[in-house]
This record gives sequence, C-alpha cells and structure tokens, in this order.
Amino acid sequence: MGLIVQKFEESLISDTIETKNLVDKVKSAYIAGNSVVVVAAVQGNYMEELVNKANRENPSRSKRELDVLISAYGQIIASLTTMAIESSGIPAISLTGYQAGIISDSNYSNARIKSIDNERIFRELDRKNVVVIAASQAWNKFEDITTFGKGGDDTTAVAVAASLQADICEFYTDLDGVYTADPKIVSSAVKLKDISYDELLELSSLGANILHNRAVELAKKYNVNLVIKSRSKNIDGTIVKEVGSVEKLMVRGVTRDNEIARIAVMGIEDKPGMAFKLFSALAKENINVDLIIQSIGRDGTEDISFTVGKSNLEGTLEVINKNMALLNPREVQHSDKYSKVSIVGAGMVNNPGIAAKMFEALYEAGINIHMITTSETKISVLVDVQDSEMAVNVIHEKFNLNA
Amino acid sequence: MGLIVQKFEESLISDTIETKNLVDKVKSAYIAGNSVVVVAAVQGNYMEELVNKANRENPSRSKRELDVLISAYGQIIASLTTMAIESSGIPAISLTGYQAGIISDSNYSNARIKSIDNERIFRELDRKNVVVIAASQAWNKFEDITTFGKGGDDTTAVAVAASLQADICEFYTDLDGVYTADPKIVSSAVKLKDISYDELLELSSLGANILHNRAVELAKKYNVNLVIKSRSKNIDGTIVKEVGSVEKLMVRGVTRDNEIARIAVMGIEDKPGMAFKLFSALAKENINVDLIIQSIGRDGTEDISFTVGKSNLEGTLEVINKNMALLNPREVQHSDKYSKVSIVGAGMVNNPGIAAKMFEALYEAGINIHMITTSETKISVLVDVQDSEMAVNVIHEKFNLNA
Repeated sequence: MGLIVQKFEESLISDTIETKNLVDKVKSAYIAGNSVVVVAAVQGNYMEELVNKANRENPSRSKRELDVLISAYGQIIASLTTMAIESSGIPAISLTGYQAGIISDSNYSNARIKSIDNERIFRELDRKNVVVIAASQAWNKFEDITTFGKGGDDTTAVAVAASLQADICEFYTDLDGVYTADPKIVSSAVKLKDISYDELLELSSLGANILHNRAVELAKKYNVNLVIKSRSKNIDGTIVKEVGSVEKLMVRGVTRDNEIARIAVMGIEDKPGMAFKLFSALAKENINVDLIIQSIGRDGTEDISFTVGKSNLEGTLEVINKNMALLNPREVQHSDKYSKVSIVGAGMVNNPGIAAKMFEALYEAGINIHMITTSETKISVLVDVQDSEMAVNVIHEKFNLNA
Repeated sequence: MGLIVQKFEESLISDTIETKNLVDKVKSAYIAGNSVVVVAAVQGNYMEELVNKANRENPSRSKRELDVLISAYGQIIASLTTMAIESSGIPAISLTGYQAGIISDSNYSNARIKSIDNERIFRELDRKNVVVIAASQAWNKFEDITTFGKGGDDTTAVAVAASLQADICEFYTDLDGVYTADPKIVSSAVKLKDISYDELLELSSLGANILHNRAVELAKKYNVNLVIKSRSKNIDGTIVKEVGSVEKLMVRGVTRDNEIARIAVMGIEDKPGMAFKLFSALAKENINVDLIIQSIGRDGTEDISFTVGKSNLEGTLEVINKNMALLNPREVQHSDKYSKVSIVGAGMVNNPGIAAKMFEALYEAGINIHMITTSETKISVLVDVQDSEMAVNVIHEKFNLNA
C-alpha cells in the first residue's frame, strides 16, 4: 500500500483498447489498497487540428489564448479518463491544473511549475477517489491558464509525485522499459532492470524517446522513483533511480539519432568571440546546438562545424544569413545525411578506455567518424546515416551489452 | 458609448464566414467606443460526439465529469473566438466561467447562477479588452465546474449583462428579429420593432425558437434590455423591453408548434385527486404538460386529455403505465398528428373579444379545434397538423398583423 502516480501516454478519445488498458492498471493499483493519482497525456489529432486552425487564422494570436485552447483539451482527456475509471466501479474525480493547486510562472505555452498546493489532491485521495489530473496545465499569479509545452505531460506526473511524496511514479508507454539499444536495430538488445537519472537523461536527449528530460531532471532533483512500463503487457519495466546500485555496468546503452543536421561555417576570421557570437545568436532563436568542432582552416582562418536538430536546420541557416556581415565566412555547408551514435553510462567517466573501445568497434567495421563529443555520461560520434545501424550493432556487441 | 454584451449563436469551429460576421459585429461596437463583452454559444458536432461517447461508455458516469467535459468545449469556443477577434487588431481576452466570477449551485449539468463577482470582467474592460466569456459554465462552492444545461448560453449573456448593468444585450441569431408569424409560413409576416418580455416568453415557449425562456425571465427580472438581430445582415432587429410602449397592438404574433403529442386517459374514476396524482407523477419525471382538458366521460367517469412535447411522449406513456393500478383507465390514446397554434400579445388580457375572433378565423377556414387553452398573454388551440399552416395564415390575416 502506498501512493502511486500513474502517467499514461495513449490518447483516450478514439481507442477503446487503450482505455481498457488504462482502467486495468488503475484498478489493480487501487484494489491493492494504494492511493492512485492518474495523469493522462494531452494529445490527439483533434487538438492538433484546433491548434493548426488557430495558427492559420491568426498567426499573431496571443499565447495566452492558445493555452486556454490547449488546456481545454487536457480537461477533456481528464474527464473522459475519469469517466472510464468510474465505469469500472472505482470512484474517481478529475482536477484541472488549477483545481490540483498547480501554480506556474507566466511563460505561456512553455510555463514552469512554481509550486503545488496539494491540499485538494490529498482531500480527494482521503475520500478514496482516484484523482485524475489534467496534464500540462496550471494557473499563474493572474489567475490565467498556462500550459507547459514539450514534455509537459511527463513533467506534470513527476511534479505531482514529488509534491505528494509518492512512493513511485509509473510511466505506461509504448516501450516496456529501457533497452541497451533499440530492439528494432539490435536484435540482441537487453532490457535494463534499472538505470540512473543521468543515464536516462542522456538517452532521452540522444533521441531515445522515453521520458522528457524536463521530467527526468525534476525527478532527479526531488529523488522521485520512476518506473517505465508497458501499457499493454503485464511485465516488469525499468526502474529509474539515483546512481549507486547501477554502477556495475560502465556502458548502459547504445543509441542513434538520425534527426540531426550538420552545418559547417568555413573560413571565418580567426579572432576572439566569433564562435560566441554565432552560438549566442542561435541561442536567442532557441536553437540547441549539439556537437561542435572548431578547427583551423586555410590561410589562418577558422572552420566551425556543429549539429542541430533536423527541424532547426532552416532556422539555423537564417540566423547565419542574418549574421553574414559579422561572420564573413568563405563558405557555409550543410547536410542532413548524418547520424549521431552514442554510448551512455554513468560509470564511463572513470573509465578512460571506453572511448577507444567504441572507436575500435567502428574502425573494425570500416565506419568513418566525422565528429566526436564526450561528456561525463556519454560519448557521441557523427557517422554517415547509412552506417548508423551497423554502428549501433557493432558497438553493442563490443561492449557485451547483450550479456 | 456604453457597455454592450453580444451573444452569438454560431459555431466557430468550422465556419469562416460566421467567424467573420462575429468579428465584424464586435469590431464595430468596439471602435464606436463601447465596452464589449462577448458570449459565444457552446455547440458543435464534436462536442455532441464526445458527450455521446461518454454516455455510451459509461451511462452512469457522474454528472460532475460530464460538466468538466462540456465546459472544456466552451473554453475552446471562447479561446477561438478571442483569437479571431485579436486577428482583427482588437485586443481581447477569454475568461472561463470561474475566471469571470460566475458562481452557481451544485446541480451539475443544470446549474443555476447564484452570483457573479464581476471584478475581473471590469478589470479587463478597463484595460480596453473585449472580454469573451465561456458560455454556460460556472464554479460551485466546492470549486468544481458546473454547466447550465438548456438555454445556458443565452442565460450567461443575460446574467452577465444584468451583473454589469450593460446598456444592451444583443443576440445575433439566424433570425433578424421577432416576426408576427414565421415568414416561411406566412409570406406577409411583419418584423416587430419591439416586444415585451412576457410576449417573448410566450412565443419562445410556443416553439418559436428565439431566446431560451430562462434567459428572458432573467432579463425581465433584472430589466435587461435585449435586442434580437441578424448575425449576417446589418439591419435593425427587435427590441425586447418592459411592456408599456408596446401596448398598442393587442395581438403581436401567431405561432405554431408541431412538436407536440396528445394523450387521452379515458374513463378514470371520478374522485378527487386523480388529475393531481397523474400530473405530479409526470412532474417528477420532469415532463412538462401543456394543454389540459378534464371532462366528464361515459358512465360518470372522467377523461383527461393533455399535450406534452413530442420527445416526452414515450416517457409520459411509461409514467401512465406505472400508475395503471391507481388510474385504472378504460383506455389510453395518444397521437402526434396535432399542431398547437397560438396567438400572443400582452394586450390580450383586457380584450375579451380576441379569442372569439381567433375561433372565427378558424371556423371560416373550416378548421376543427380539438383543445383550447388561454393565459393572460396567449390563446392556444390544438388543430390537425395538416391544417396548421392555413390556421396560422388565416389568423394572421384576421388580426391584420401584416398592417
């Protein structure tokens, strides 16, 4: 018996089987005597259609109103979820962000949670209700509705779990846990029993779409135990918790990300601040830069190469164009024919031989490396996209991850 | 310059022309220097679909959750309306029922407004915002969402107008005002310049779908000036205000209602309380009874005939069946082949010749009258449905309403 927060990924509007899966999970947890809080993801074609309509009709509509629209959809999902739970004979009640006491800043469409006054949630749990909280919405100090943007659904679940000091925060997903590599690419990939927050953060940021990083960071900060489980099958998932028990494997997983583009700004003058100016201009447009190589070019000039998400390629080129006078490069190249292949593991930082072993695996397979970047918990390399599947497989084998 | 509440009937989700009409009306009122409050009706196929889905999946789902669902749709309409207004360059802001300070009782799906704390509305108007209020929703004392049920959209507009002491509450509808008869039936029907609350109440309850009676009653109570106008054409509508200036015509309009059914419970014992028991059983099921005739039947028994809305026919027969032992009638007949034709006018009460004139018109046309009922402001007769169009026309002519 304890307090469980359950977050579900699926859309309940159209899918009866997913609704049944959700109700089954909630019911078992409730009948076992737990207090259950449910967060159902805000998604669905209808909302996209509405948001597109809003954007089409008025591209300059205020973000405040877009949040009113998006949050209404979250409210619909929450009420339908609640009705589905009620229909199984379990008492349930839906709460909007405000009713759940979730207060955020006023950064519409991308708000951050400031506090949760959990009095109402606890009151409803005391009344033996399953509490269904509308995902990704809050109120700000003006008593206006905000939404959380990307990762808002996951973040809601973790924030509520932290506030309630829940025993566990369960994520029911398409996946049944975190694997050493994508089983679609590596047939011998193995599901991890547990993983640290940092490792999961790296995996998520590397394109393994598990939990949103905002949520994992929050879980790490408040030490919320997470578990990633299958929404359809009744099997153990992967537990996410603080490092310590999970140190025995140095490399925990291999992943690849094809959704990247590489830009090379070549032949810029070698004087201080050039890279800074370029990257701060990109940061202003909210473009995240990943791998960066700065190298000496011809005739004493500099070349700067970096990667961005594929969807940011156009925006990046625009920023460079705007700053042409400043950068004055000889040439700007770009390509999206690359893939980023990474190994992740909290234990890597103390094992300098890891990188060499990874490069060796690629060398043996005849795979060319274009760029390299390393951090405490990951090593990433840029390879040609057609080499990426093989790269993941040979690295997975080299590190004996299927053991 | 003044304070105007504008209520719009159309659905904004799918119709661009209706959106343009709405924005045009709001913009002209705003540019003329008025403070403008907008109430956009909650309607649309998508919501019906959702509610049907909810009912299908869980017929016993709590009404509280249904209200969460319905109110979310109102929020969507309000935000889209606001964005549309913003797109014309007019500052606008949407408010949910709670944000607008609307507090109701806890009768979910059929809540009544208890009070409006209009501080937020006035604050936004002071900031020169057009304030768009989500229709038909409020909060109760538990900080839960309620909705108002039938007529809730009209009622929201009138209640807000009363609270703000608006100069006028404009209803933009399919109609361009109130006519002496349905122009589709009577080609010479004339639009009324003004009409009293009571006359409008009678017309609405007689099937002329103009404003919901809840809203008109509220307007009468708080003396809110209403005007019914065309949503597409730019012409004068019909003003609804307290009787006085509108007394010169005795009969104001003729209307018919085909959506009725007649039930005859024949040969019940002639003892006190039989009619009371029958009608109180119907009232318990929320079935409104309209025309009633109680008459002596054969062998000292009684016959009770009455009309109900066509949609209530089945429910009415069920109630009678449940009370068979009590009523013990010889026979129960029912038919929906009737039409109710009525004349309405606040001046009628002091003119006893009116009824005779109406019956004369029907007699001259050879139309048979099955039942009659009168009130201070209307006279209704039941005729065969195939006679109803002619009945409306001959009465309209008899009273010179096209004058």
